[in-house]
Amino acid sequence: MITTKTPVLIRMHDQDNVAVVGNDGGLPAGTEVAPGLTLREGVPQSHKVALVDLAAGDVVRRYNVVIGYAKEALPAGSWVNENRLRLPDAPSLADLPMATAPKPDWAPLAGYTFEGFRNPDGSVGTRNILAISTTVQCVSGVVDFAVKRIKETLLPRYPNVDDVVGIEHTYGCGVAIDAPGAEVPIRTLRHISQNPNFGGEVMVVSLGCEKLQPERLMPPGSIPLTVGTSAAAQPKDNESPWGVLDVVCLQDQQHVGFASMIEHILRQAEQHLKRLNVRQRETVPASELVVGMQCGGSDAFSGITANPVLGFASDLLVRAGATVMFSEVTEVRDGIAQLTARAATPAVAQALINEMDWYDQYLARGGADRSANTTPGNKRGGLSNIVEKAMGSISKSGSAPISGVLSPGARLNGQRGLVYAATPASDFICGTLQLAAGMNVHIFTTGRGTPYGLAACPVIKVATRSDLARRWHDLMDVNAGEIADGKQTIESMGWAMFELLLDVASGRRRTWAEQWQLHNSLALFNPAPVT
Amino acid sequence: MITTKTPVLIRMHDQDNVAVVGNDGGLPAGTEVAPGLTLREGVPQSHKVALVDLAAGDVVRRYNVVIGYAKEALPAGSWVNENRLRLPDAPSLADLPMATAPKPDWAPLAGYTFEGFRNPDGSVGTRNILAISTTVQCVSGVVDFAVKRIKETLLPRYPNVDDVVGIEHTYGCGVAIDAPGAEVPIRTLRHISQNPNFGGEVMVVSLGCEKLQPERLMPPGSIPLTVGTSAAAQPKDNESPWGVLDVVCLQDQQHVGFASMIEHILRQAEQHLKRLNVRQRETVPASELVVGMQCGGSDAFSGITANPVLGFASDLLVRAGATVMFSEVTEVRDGIAQLTARAATPAVAQALINEMDWYDQYLARGGADRSANTTPGNKRGGLSNIVEKAMGSISKSGSAPISGVLSPGARLNGQRGLVYAATPASDFICGTLQLAAGMNVHIFTTGRGTPYGLAACPVIKVATRSDLARRWHDLMDVNAGEIADGKQTIESMGWAMFELLLDVASGRRRTWAEQWQLHNSLALFNPAPVT
Repeated sequence: MITTKTPVLIRMHDQDNVAVVGNDGGLPAGTEVAPGLTLREGVPQSHKVALVDLAAGDVVRRYNVVIGYAKEALPAGSWVNENRLRLPDAPSLADLPMATAPKPDWAPLAGYTFEGFRNPDGSVGTRNILAISTTVQCVSGVVDFAVKRIKETLLPRYPNVDDVVGIEHTYGCGVAIDAPGAEVPIRTLRHISQNPNFGGEVMVVSLGCEKLQPERLMPPGSIPLTVGTSAAAQPKDNESPWGVLDVVCLQDQQHVGFASMIEHILRQAEQHLKRLNVRQRETVPASELVVGMQCGGSDAFSGITANPVLGFASDLLVRAGATVMFSEVTEVRDGIAQLTARAATPAVAQALINEMDWYDQYLARGGADRSANTTPGNKRGGLSNIVEKAMGSISKSGSAPISGVLSPGARLNGQRGLVYAATPASDFICGTLQLAAGMNVHIFTTGRGTPYGLAACPVIKVATRSDLARRWHDLMDVNAGEIADGKQTIESMGWAMFELLLDVASGRRRTWAEQWQLHNSLALFNPAPVT
Repeated sequence: MITTKTPVLIRMHDQDNVAVVGNDGGLPAGTEVAPGLTLREGVPQSHKVALVDLAAGDVVRRYNVVIGYAKEALPAGSWVNENRLRLPDAPSLADLPMATAPKPDWAPLAGYTFEGFRNPDGSVGTRNILAISTTVQCVSGVVDFAVKRIKETLLPRYPNVDDVVGIEHTYGCGVAIDAPGAEVPIRTLRHISQNPNFGGEVMVVSLGCEKLQPERLMPPGSIPLTVGTSAAAQPKDNESPWGVLDVVCLQDQQHVGFASMIEHILRQAEQHLKRLNVRQRETVPASELVVGMQCGGSDAFSGITANPVLGFASDLLVRAGATVMFSEVTEVRDGIAQLTARAATPAVAQALINEMDWYDQYLARGGADRSANTTPGNKRGGLSNIVEKAMGSISKSGSAPISGVLSPGARLNGQRGLVYAATPASDFICGTLQLAAGMNVHIFTTGRGTPYGLAACPVIKVATRSDLARRWHDLMDVNAGEIADGKQTIESMGWAMFELLLDVASGRRRTWAEQWQLHNSLALFNPAPVT
């Protein structure tokens, strides 16, 4: 723990003209923070101090990036905050460096494994969950009722199944389902049902009259399994029906009364539970990890401690042949030149540009731009604007080449290595889209603190500061604040994170969100209108 | 029950050149449906039959309204369906009749009462519910955990309180909170917490760093009640604190560990439960009803049976001095001239036009228009397009003058009588916005069938057809199909509906959705982008 007795300023690059106060509780006016540099005013923890005299209009540089322009004269020792900085224009999407960065000459990382559930399509689950998909919000009350009943009466008989989860959402009807952008929520729902943690047991509850008809949720090539299918065509017990869609339609004539709907759902659910129950964990290479990385409730420590740890772990995962996704368009937009340079090929660089351009237009249509990102808490945590926030956010991605780009709601299709999954920065929309992409473990870093959790996938939560980790001791799985405290290095914590991922994926370690069953609802990204 | 032995065609107006098949199961080709009129092909129940020879391009008229143009020659006895009709253009918003319709000369309806919970602000609740509002989705997992614990450990000690409900949503952060349109979800959340069924006990769980800071959810003039408020300033037991905002902020320094968050929420919740528990039902006039009307999963019977019943009941409610809301912009857009004519004043007519215009532009920005409304189920149920659907939908509004207009998320502010609450047609968004407006009883009509339910307010569900009412006997509260069966008239069922509303409002009768606790999530209308 850093106390005010030892003033600590953290500078990210030797070209920077600001540095961040590391001390818990901040530092008072008059503190000599470096030889010849005295604070002219009190500066809170994780906030910036001018290291030199800045005139009005001067560039302010952190991470060796122009994060803004001084709105007024800021003599050395001044507090540099959001009210004193002007936001730079967003970088142009023209004339960017395309796949120009040298490729790292890394040795593959062999011999790391975890215990996972291998699926018929080759993917690997880290949990064994029955997911009941829904086509439309109308059925949610019924599905909630059924899931509760399944957990009470059926699940105890299938002890190898971890959970039963309703894939509920507010889409499916009352929406402009043929408008531009509507394919995003539709493919998201289709792909979530194929998440590796659900073992290929695709079961859908439909209303009947809704716009999102169940066929639109079918994986390509799958066989519709409807009521009355002959016994021969039904998948046998213990036979995984990857590619079979099992639909319970509430408006079917066969349903007489609420009880018959619930019984039908339970009957179908039990078929899936039987098959899921015979799944066994087996040793698989670390390359089967599909890690989704995200940050939320960020502060200026996010880019100093937790996100660089994720970046280091990400490089290890890439070397081990695994897949790592980073996301959040508005939180990489200001670093697009770094990303296009790091693209593995010019085509990947172009795909990155296309996603930025699409999102710029999406925001402009709604009268907004990237500056709508950053929250009151981000600012209190020292992040003055979206440029500074983005530089910290991008550090999650480490230094590997970017090998692929996914549009919102798209599913990984053979891509490995570091993948940019384009999503909004909204925590729950991002998590939902990463689930659709095929994520089997989630890492979430936070400086201000959030009890984020998902039902479908384990979430490892990483605190950026020791103060948060101490207070939220039973919500934060990892304290990256130990780096600022001098107890750990980014390298040592990066390795620990890599090992922790293997433990969590194997079910040897349960995260705090799993322990408390903190399950936030899914949140679909629907860029199209509602009707 | 109508059998195929007695062919029944239902014509809405003597100028109509189509009529609807009333018989369960439809009618086969060759049936003589009227003297000299024989079906040229089989026509399903609730679908239209050409009564005369129609040439390609001829107008097709139902409800004495042009619902489309024949795409091809349709000789008398042909099946007129969505594939054979061309959609008319949307009516212009210029040169509309402004408050021109004669006002009905009704006697007031006196002496009707119900048993309700009178609130300090004068509104009346029909249920006694503790609502725990949330500023942001991040806290939902924690609130779910706390609500479950409250129901298990506290609620049994306060038997006069009906339920504890988390007001959860996907808004609050990761959104462009200053973009045009963002005021819609924000005021919706603010107003929902003031719903009469929550007794003025406004309790909020906040994260701390989110964009939607708790102050933005405060009713104007309310007193913030934060941790550490002196005991004197705290509302006393049994003293209703209408206008006091009680915030539990998870990121507060005082919280050490998950248990302390849960304990804090329970401690605050118990203060509210104590006050809610002393509320007593008292006899109040029927004028305190605030009825939200909606239809969903509609068919061609919606405009023949259930919605006209609601229209009749609506007129009774207006005569009794109550408030009735109808909604769903795309489902009145084609009847705008009827509505502006029925406006009580030209200002109300102009407000109607403004809401239509705003929604036209909202849809156009997203590349859609009103034709995006109508679902596969609507069409299977005989509704060929949005014009035909709208004519049935509007019939819910009866014949009273329209006395007021609410923008999405706005709250009733003294308006009485028939109010148009502008909302999307999406069932759950519409219900959420009607809750925000101040609804204390909800009526929902359906032809295809939906298990719709809300946690915050009783929902009376009305089937348009006897077949649905028979099959869903424990989900549908009223069978308006008896009108088509000749067992009831619109007038007799309208009176029964009025009486049922008083019974449900009084808690003497619980709806099926309450019985099964079918609680769909709230769905906010956010016309602004996410970030």
